[in-house]
Order: sequence, then structure tokens, then C-alpha cells
Amino acid sequence: MLHFECDYLEGADQRVLQALVDANEQQYGSYGEDEPCSKARVLIREMTACPSAAVHFVVGGTQANLTVISAALRPWEGVLCADTAHIAVHETGAIEATGHKVLALPGRDGKISASQVEAAYNAHHQDITHEHIVKPAMVYISHPTEMGTLYTREELGALSEFCKAHDLLLFLDGARLGYGLAADPRVDLPFLARCCDAFTIGGTKAGLLFGEAIVLTNPKLAPCFRYAIKQRGGMLAKGWLLGIQFMALLKDGYYVRTCAKANAAAQAIKQAFLDKGVALLVDTPANQVFPILSRPQTASLGEKYGFSHWQQVDQEHTAVRFCVSATTREGAVEALLHDIAEWDD
Amino acid sequence: MLHFECDYLEGADQRVLQALVDANEQQYGSYGEDEPCSKARVLIREMTACPSAAVHFVVGGTQANLTVISAALRPWEGVLCADTAHIAVHETGAIEATGHKVLALPGRDGKISASQVEAAYNAHHQDITHEHIVKPAMVYISHPTEMGTLYTREELGALSEFCKAHDLLLFLDGARLGYGLAADPRVDLPFLARCCDAFTIGGTKAGLLFGEAIVLTNPKLAPCFRYAIKQRGGMLAKGWLLGIQFMALLKDGYYVRTCAKANAAAQAIKQAFLDKGVALLVDTPANQVFPILSRPQTASLGEKYGFSHWQQVDQEHTAVRFCVSATTREGAVEALLHDIAEWDD
Amino acid sequence: MLHFECDYLEGADQRVLQALVDANEQQYGSYGEDEPCSKARVLIREMTACPSAAVHFVVGGTQANLTVISAALRPWEGVLCADTAHIAVHETGAIEATGHKVLALPGRDGKISASQVEAAYNAHHQDITHEHIVKPAMVYISHPTEMGTLYTREELGALSEFCKAHDLLLFLDGARLGYGLAADPRVDLPFLARCCDAFTIGGTKAGLLFGEAIVLTNPKLAPCFRYAIKQRGGMLAKGWLLGIQFMALLKDGYYVRTCAKANAAAQAIKQAFLDKGVALLVDTPANQVFPILSRPQTASLGEKYGFSHWQQVDQEHTAVRFCVSATTREGAVEALLHDIAEWDD
Amino acid sequence: MLHFECDYLEGADQRVLQALVDANEQQYGSYGEDEPCSKARVLIREMTACPSAAVHFVVGGTQANLTVISAALRPWEGVLCADTAHIAVHETGAIEATGHKVLALPGRDGKISASQVEAAYNAHHQDITHEHIVKPAMVYISHPTEMGTLYTREELGALSEFCKAHDLLLFLDGARLGYGLAADPRVDLPFLARCCDAFTIGGTKAGLLFGEAIVLTNPKLAPCFRYAIKQRGGMLAKGWLLGIQFMALLKDGYYVRTCAKANAAAQAIKQAFLDKGVALLVDTPANQVFPILSRPQTASLGEKYGFSHWQQVDQEHTAVRFCVSATTREGAVEALLHDIAEWDD
Repeated sequence: MLHFECDYLEGADQRVLQALVDANEQQYGSYGEDEPCSKARVLIREMTACPSAAVHFVVGGTQANLTVISAALRPWEGVLCADTAHIAVHETGAIEATGHKVLALPGRDGKISASQVEAAYNAHHQDITHEHIVKPAMVYISHPTEMGTLYTREELGALSEFCKAHDLLLFLDGARLGYGLAADPRVDLPFLARCCDAFTIGGTKAGLLFGEAIVLTNPKLAPCFRYAIKQRGGMLAKGWLLGIQFMALLKDGYYVRTCAKANAAAQAIKQAFLDKGVALLVDTPANQVFPILSRPQTASLGEKYGFSHWQQVDQEHTAVRFCVSATTREGAVEALLHDIAEWDD
Repeated sequence: MLHFECDYLEGADQRVLQALVDANEQQYGSYGEDEPCSKARVLIREMTACPSAAVHFVVGGTQANLTVISAALRPWEGVLCADTAHIAVHETGAIEATGHKVLALPGRDGKISASQVEAAYNAHHQDITHEHIVKPAMVYISHPTEMGTLYTREELGALSEFCKAHDLLLFLDGARLGYGLAADPRVDLPFLARCCDAFTIGGTKAGLLFGEAIVLTNPKLAPCFRYAIKQRGGMLAKGWLLGIQFMALLKDGYYVRTCAKANAAAQAIKQAFLDKGVALLVDTPANQVFPILSRPQTASLGEKYGFSHWQQVDQEHTAVRFCVSATTREGAVEALLHDIAEWDD
Repeated sequence: MLHFECDYLEGADQRVLQALVDANEQQYGSYGEDEPCSKARVLIREMTACPSAAVHFVVGGTQANLTVISAALRPWEGVLCADTAHIAVHETGAIEATGHKVLALPGRDGKISASQVEAAYNAHHQDITHEHIVKPAMVYISHPTEMGTLYTREELGALSEFCKAHDLLLFLDGARLGYGLAADPRVDLPFLARCCDAFTIGGTKAGLLFGEAIVLTNPKLAPCFRYAIKQRGGMLAKGWLLGIQFMALLKDGYYVRTCAKANAAAQAIKQAFLDKGVALLVDTPANQVFPILSRPQTASLGEKYGFSHWQQVDQEHTAVRFCVSATTREGAVEALLHDIAEWDD
Repeated sequence: MLHFECDYLEGADQRVLQALVDANEQQYGSYGEDEPCSKARVLIREMTACPSAAVHFVVGGTQANLTVISAALRPWEGVLCADTAHIAVHETGAIEATGHKVLALPGRDGKISASQVEAAYNAHHQDITHEHIVKPAMVYISHPTEMGTLYTREELGALSEFCKAHDLLLFLDGARLGYGLAADPRVDLPFLARCCDAFTIGGTKAGLLFGEAIVLTNPKLAPCFRYAIKQRGGMLAKGWLLGIQFMALLKDGYYVRTCAKANAAAQAIKQAFLDKGVALLVDTPANQVFPILSRPQTASLGEKYGFSHWQQVDQEHTAVRFCVSATTREGAVEALLHDIAEWDD
């Protein structure tokens, strides 16, 4: 069985693993106050062209989201996002568990627009009973989204502009950021750093054993953030494991390069489905593909390949998800491409 | 510089690291639903002689503590512990952040007694205004404690007996459990499983890159615990990393064996200090040593060795901490022993 | 200016006020442990035909909602409700502030149906990643709803049946319950007590200075509830003020009688609008009326009367709300009826 | 039976009750946005000589405390207080339920000193692991304290000076403030307004049916405070009840005058006990008295009078509490004085 259900099925990229092995017998400072983390912070500040950014490393994405959001908001403030956003549906109410309402807006292909945010903002502030309603104070977006889609530079710019003008924080969840950076170089790290108050650079889905870098570009978010990480259970004792891995992943452009390879494989899979007349739930430019398969197609592919059932489309068809990641083996992709091409339905 | 500040200074034990390397290119299920975790669960149920135990793996100790405690308690319930307990002082209020009061009792060498718990319990229940006071519903202890000391089998038995008779949950934080098991075989895993409603088996401080096993022996604590882990940000995407490591650490008695070696080294260091007439803040039988050093002693040792400043004892003396762990190199211990022996003050 | 914006514009019903004045110089026990509260509890148990019900009194509705919900749910559990529910939109995220997600379903005229609850329940439990999603554990409904509508006996029965069969708690917010009881005697207190696990009997909007009675019919919700009230800030020092008021309001059928009068006045206002060809946003049988007024109508009525702007319907029309309560003066209603009748547009 | 257990045994002062009766049939705006509250706000700004103060009214003291503290602190911040503080012991963990640790210091007669706060502050900031420890960010004191004692002007000045210099908020719980103002005119409202960032003026224990005024003198605490009140369940629908009562209580110096009378009565009771050779647990200048009674004394007084058992002193003696409030009847005090004087033991 070859698995494509998600982008965290294997261990680490070879380069990352080697760095961990090389560092294993060294002694390092604890809790992220160590040389590898310091170097990785410097590198991220360079890559984002944001010398004043505060950079922290945590193990997982839900941890990153709940720590950033709960540290940034006051108790009566909520966070606007798409109704498909990870924080809205797949974190078991982690944000609410810190006391904050997630204010979901109807997403389109996983995205929300500046005009939706504007409408929500105005609806709140023009309501004379607004003190009885959670105050929108942050906008959360994912890039790529949970639907595999990307924001354009213009869409991000518009969101950012509205947020900055209306005292809303813009937080971008970059759990799959490398695939986005590789798919659209116009949306690069310096641009994101200028647009957002905070964003994450995802490692877990791009070749790390684990790890998300939190980049706080808004200096108001920086004070006491390590207290927040510790309080929420996210401060890794051997924090240098994160620094070592991120250095190995990020230096010399490796992050985007390795993600680009995965994107190319995913796009080849997408094309193979299209060539067979299979429709897509949504057209996606990065490492996730969402073909709509018939029951027999699902059954036949399911014999050799693992993939996620995403959404029932009609009685006979289901949208499924195939992911390729930085650690997917080439042979697996080739086998899948071959088998799709061989279909005779 | 050779470091003894804490027991999480190096990476993984060689056997653990090799297991990770060997597994790296495999594909595994996500979020802890995988074969390595299943095997580790089976092994832990065997080792604890508790076939009905629910076993979960998380990355860190604060994560384990806050998840167990917040999942077990109702909103108005609090947790009794020593005033030196990790949850009381060194987790940035992680328990309070989930809504629960930590009810600290004056510890003796890091420990609390059944009679202290009884007094606190009675003080609550005999107060006619008890509905205005947080209800004690759980007892948290560490074994070994944060002071390096151990509960005896009798002390644990008495605590357990009182708790079971009075509907209090007993939760044991085993961040350094291996060193305790090695130092006193009368307090073994099956005994702990019978005494406690929940306890952790610490990996981070005993040769894992990271990892704490949560063992829920009370079946009332089991339902929906994975929801709790996810909500608090503790569900590792590549959860099999924990299963792989724990299997490597625990199987064939390796855990206790490797911790016993570290205990022996720590005890040798303790003896070396005693031989030089150095007093101890507290006598400790496991992997932590707390000598009280004079200023010149601190300065001279500090040139070559890292250790923690624990507590100012008087104007001229400071209690410091030396830790030995499963990953401390033998050469480092030998060098330290040699240098203490060479002291001529 | 005569005000109809809401149903809490005046002080207390004369009978209630007199009871307070009569009791003013007595000495009573504190925090709700007093004779007037005891008597009111007995009366409510009789009126609900639920001798085992636990009955508590708090000052306000948001307080009642957040206390009941946070006391009933485990951290990872959420509460299903209509998207117009008070807890979803008008309590500044009070439920989320206690850690729980509000799971809003699209309401129809403020109501949700058993089949909607069933669909939401199944969607959760059939999702293989359900541990990553907030678990629905309670259904919250309002009766009358925030839109002034009522559940029928059959609708409530169906909701209750599904909830009981699927381990969901049913909680009914009765902030305006008296008006509902008066409007539809088939949905009476004993029926509600059998259907619901918890419900409130609203006093603030029906002639009390303040006060909501919380009726916990499910014995699992009873233990330690006074701890919950105190912790959330809802335990009134002079708690007997609540007992006195509820006794005055509830005894001898006064509650329903006085609410029936207000309903009749509201229905007369509704009819007056209908007679003038004014459409309704929603047809309502109790004490709230939602006519859709043109701009000139709004302006002319607005000169003498206060009412709430509810919802923009189109460029030229706005739905507004008129409320009549147990303390609305008859003269005010007569004046309004007269002025609507005199309209010549 | 004549009751002296606490200072909230009767209803309202006659003047306050009359004001409520007079206002009963008026129509007022809801949720505290009404004329009586506006007037009371203006009056309080005048009385405190703090024209920029934000003033809010809530029903109870726990509500006031939890709302102020949770609105003022960031998640990782805690509040220093005496170990006898109401928030530390008698609010069922209300502060922790909002996520914040209460950092209790050993009080002396219910008070803490500037030097204790300084020591706690330094202990935190000088600890190199301070990010693992809750950050002290606020100091909570009660005046009068829960032990009936008062801070002197000098003590308050010193606390305030340290707090202002070290970015700590000073919050004074004035649940019994009127008795304090009456007992020591050197600590007046303008002085408190200059010393504190926030304080409350207690009404419940001084002749209101209910009500605490929250005075926010630090402008940083003002924004969005009404959101906080609503979210925590403290926004009274008929909020004008609070404005009416506070106006009646505060205008023309009535608050201090009526509290002074109660103080005098309490002091007479204290003197009566002293005259009989009864020792005091603590000497108190305001409306609470803490005699240490023998078993026979307790029994004989207990036949006719209610009082609180405060603390077991030895096998034979118990400290008890007698309170006099603004609504205690003169006859009751006289009877008690007479009966103590008649003692022949």
C-alpha cells in the first residue's frame, strides 16, 4: 500500500535527519535558548527581510495557532476566518478553549476576501449593541488553504490593507507555506512579512520530523511570547531540535526547492486525472489534489493507494485528496501515475 | 565546558536514535494511530500489569500535566500538590490557564503526605462556606520529586488509600520516573498503576528526543481523552515518532537499566562532594545532586562545568544542582569526579 | 416618549415590588440559603411536577446560560443552537469565554429542528477525524425564541426524544418563558421538565426587578452547582431577593396570567399593523411583534414611540420590534394602538 | 434571634428603598446606559476627584473582581494578594476560572506591604527561568480587609508608589469601603483614586439591595470594559437599578455618614467585649469585630444572637465575628450590648 492521505506520513527529509544525527551528542541550552535556534532565527529574519521579527519554534500547528491567537487577543475579541479554516473545524475547539470565539465566514475554495472582512467588521461596529457581540480583532487565513488553494498577491495585499487600516491583526497559518512559496513566487516571504502581523512557516508537512516557526512581525505581539508558549505547553525541553531542523530545511533555498519538487509531482497526478476525464473539486496549484472519483474508481485505486475521502459529491461520486510532500518517495508517485494512466474506464 | 544543569541537554540515547533512523522512510498512520504507538501501548500495559490502562503519548511534561488535569477536573475543582511542584511554580500557570486552581501545600523535600492531604480535605469539607472555596479533587505528586527525592512505597500507599476512600484522584508526574524506578525497586510500575488514577512515564529526561507516556489507569478518565489532547495542542502529527522512541526505550528493561547507570554516576558525584565535606541541601537517591557550595567552590567548578544555581543558603553558600541523565557521557562524569577529588580547599 | 424597545424597561410588577418592600427589614440567610428561596424552590418543583428538580436563582440570563453550560459540558464539548440564539450572537462570547464552542445551525424563525440536530450529530460521529472536531453534547433552544416564535409541543417532543436517545443534553432558555406558557398551554411546565435536562424560568422580562430561575431536572447536573454559580460570579449576597420576587411572581398562577395580558396587548398591536397593511418579518404569538415599516412609517412612529431596529429588509423598509411586558402600562399600549389606527398612509 | 453574622442580612437602607420605589414605574434605557447611571457616574467622578475615571456598576463583588482582573491581565500574568484575600480563598477559584493565577503572600491581619510586593516582584524578575513562572502584574488589596483592618495612608502610598514604578496595577477591593472611609478620613476617595488603577465602591454591604461601583482610574483599563462585563455575565438588564441605588447612597455624604454610624455601633460592641475581658483576634476600627469567646460564652450568646465562627483558637476558644451594617437595626445592637454587659462570667 502506498499512502497519499496527507503530507505527514514519513519521517524527515534526509538532509534534516542527518543534521539531527550529527547534533545528537552535543550539549545545547534548553527551551529554545540555544545556538541552533539562534541561527535559525537569524536566517528567518534574513529570508523574510524583517530584521525586527520575533521568531519562535513550536512542535505543531494547533499549538502555534492557539498560542499566537490567545496571546494576541483580549478576552472579548474573536478571530475571523473561513468556515473551512483549520481553527474553525479541525482543532477540537482549541481556540475556544483559550476563551475566544472563532467567527467563521463562508469561504470560497478555502479563502475569504477583504470585502468579506470589511462587511463583518462593519456589521459589528455599526450595531448599536456591539458590546454584546464578540469584537472581531484578528483575521486568520491559511496559505495554501485547507483546500489546497492559494491567495494571490493582490488578494493578500487587499486583506492586509484593510486590516492595517482598521486595527485588525492579520495572521497567516503557513502549515504548508513552502508549497505555496514554490507555486507562486510573487507571494514570497518578504511580502508576507509586510502583509501579516504574524505568520507561521510550516516544517512538519515539508520534511521535518516536526516543527512550525512562528514569525511575529508586529512588535506589539512580541513581549512575553515565551511565557505564552510555556503556559500553553508548547515549550520543547530540547528546543534545539527545532533549530537544527529548521536550519537544515531553510538554508540555501532548500525549503522552496524541495517543496517545488513535491508540487510538480502533485501537478503531474492532477494532470493524469484530468487526462482521464476526472473532474476536480477545486483546481489546486500546489501539493494537494482533489479529484472527484466514481465509486469504481475509488475502489480500484483504493486497492493499492491510500488517499483521504474529502467530501461526498453525489450518490456516485466522492471528492478525495491526494497529497505529495517533501518526503514522498519518487517511486510511489511514478507507480500512481502509471496506474492512473492505465485506467480503462 | 561540560554541562550538568539539567537532564535534557543532549539528544537521544543511541538505541533510540537508531530506531528513529531505521523508521524514517516508512509510512505510518498519523496522530498516534499507528503501529509503533500500538505496540508501545501494549508494552506499557504489560509493564504496568494494567491491561485496561489507556495509554497516550505527548511531547512534553507541561503538556501532559495540563491535559490530564483539565480533562479530569470539573471547573470548580482544584489540585492539591507540594508548593515546590512543577505545576505550582514552573509551568507559567498552565493549570490555571485551563481554569483550575493549584492548591499548594507546604512540601517537605518536595513531598506531601497523606495526613496533609487529609487535613486539606477536611478543612474544605468541614467549612460551611465550602461552596465558596475551590473543591480539592485531585492530588498531584512527582516521583522523583523536583527536589530529587522519592516517595516510599508506604508513603505512596497511604496517599493512594486516602484518595481512593475520599474520591480524590491521584496523579503522579513521572517526568523522571525511570530514575525513581531504578533507585527503589519496591515502587515499581504495577504498584504505581494500582496506587494512581493517572501517571506519566517520562522519556525526555531519560534518553528520548522528547516524549511522555500518559497512563490512565482509572477507566473514568479514559473517554474522549484524544479530544483533550488535540484541543490542548498536544497531538503530534507524526505521532509514531513517540511510539518508536518509547518502544526502543522501554523494551527488555532498558529504561530502568539505563536510568540505573545515570543514578550510579550521580551518586558517585554526591559521594565525591561528601568526601570533601560538602553538605547537601537534601539527600537524594537518584539522578540529581544538590551540594551546598561556597563562593570559591562555585567559582572554581564553574570554570569547567555547568550546573544550576538552586537556592541561596546564606551569604557565602549556594545550593546548586548537578544532573546526570541517560545521555550524559561517561567521560564528563569522570572528569567531574576527578576535579572534585583534586580540590584542596 | 413611550418605549417598546424591549421587555425590561420598567421596574417590578406592583405585587413583586410590594413583596420586596414588605421583606426589606427582615433578616435572612445569605447566598440563596434562606426561607424565601426555599419556598420558591418548593413551588417551582410543584409547578413543574418535578419533585427531584434542583432549583437555583441567578440575577441574569447570560449568567444563567454560561453557568449551566459550563457546568454541564466537558472541555471538548460544544453546544448546538440556532444561529440567532442569544448565546451565539448576543452574549459577547460568554460561552466561549468558559472554553466551549457554540455550534450554530441555520435557524428558521429562530428555531432548530430535531432533524437538524440529528444531521449535526451524525456528521460529527461519522467523521473519522471526529476527535479533531468539537463534540456536540448539548442542544440549546430558546422558548419563546429571540424571534418571538414558539416551539410546538411536537417539535419539542421530537428534539427531546432525539437528545435523550443520543446522550445530548437539552437546555431551554426561558428568558421569556411566561409569554410562551401563556401563548400555548400545550407546552406547559411539566412538559418542559420532562423534555429538558435544564431550563430557565425568566423573571427579568416578566415583572421582576431581575431574576432567572434555573431548573435542573437531570440529576446528573445537580451536584456542586452552587460552586459553579459562585465561581462564575452569579451568587447574590442577598439571595433572598430572588426568592421573594419569584414567590410573588409565580404563586397562584400569576406568572402566566400577567404574561397573558402582555401577550394580548402585543397581539393587538400586531393586528393594528396588519390592519394597516403592514407586513410582518415573522408572525409571532407572544409578546414581541416585528412589523416591517417603510421609512416614513418609521419616522412618524419614532416621534412618539421607542422601538428597536431589527433588520434592514430593503432600501425602503426595516423590520422593527415592539415588545410588551408585564410592566408595560396599559395607557402606553392604548396610545400606540390609537396612533397606528389613525395612520393615513 | 438577632443576626450579626455578616453585613448583608437585611434589604436596603430606607432612603435607597424609597428611591427604588419612586423610580419603579419610569422607563429607562437598558444595560446601564441610562440617566440614573450617568448621574451616579458623574457623582463618583466628583467624589473621587478623578474626572477621567471610567465608572461601571455591577451586582456583586466576585463579579467585580473577576471582571476587572480578567480584563486587565494578559494570559500569563497573575495577581499578588494576601493569603486571606477574598479572591484567594472565597470566590471558588473565580479568578483561576478566567485563566489567571492568584499569587498569595502571607498576610498580616489581612494586609500585605510594599516590601512584600517588592520581594515577590524581584523574586520573579531575578529568576533566570522567569518565563516559566507566572508574571506578577497586579496587586489586589481589600480595604477594609477581610479581617476588618485598614491600610494606613502611608501603607497605601508605599504600595502605590512601588506599583507605579514597576508597571504593576494596583486594584483595591472596596466591598466594605464606606466603613473604611468613615473610620479613617485620611484615606479618602481622591487619595484612593490617585493610588489605585482600579477600585470598587461597595454598596451591597452598606445599604444597597446589591451593587458595586467599579472605578477605573487608569485610562488603559477603560477601553472595551463593557464588553468584559457582558461576557462575564455581569451586565444587568435593568442596569438603572444600580444607578438609582448608588445615587441615593452616595449623594450628600450619606455613604460615609451611614457607615460611620455602623462603625460606632461595632466599636461599642468591641468595647463591651473588652470591658468583659474578652480578647480580640485582631483589633479592628470599622464595622467588624472579632472577639475570642470561650465555649460557654459562645453557647450563651448563641442562644439569642447569630454570629460567624471565624477560627478555632485553642481547644476552649473560638474567634467569632460580629458585623454591623448600614441596615442593622439599632435595637438589635442595644440588646446585644445589654446582654454582654449583663454577663457574669
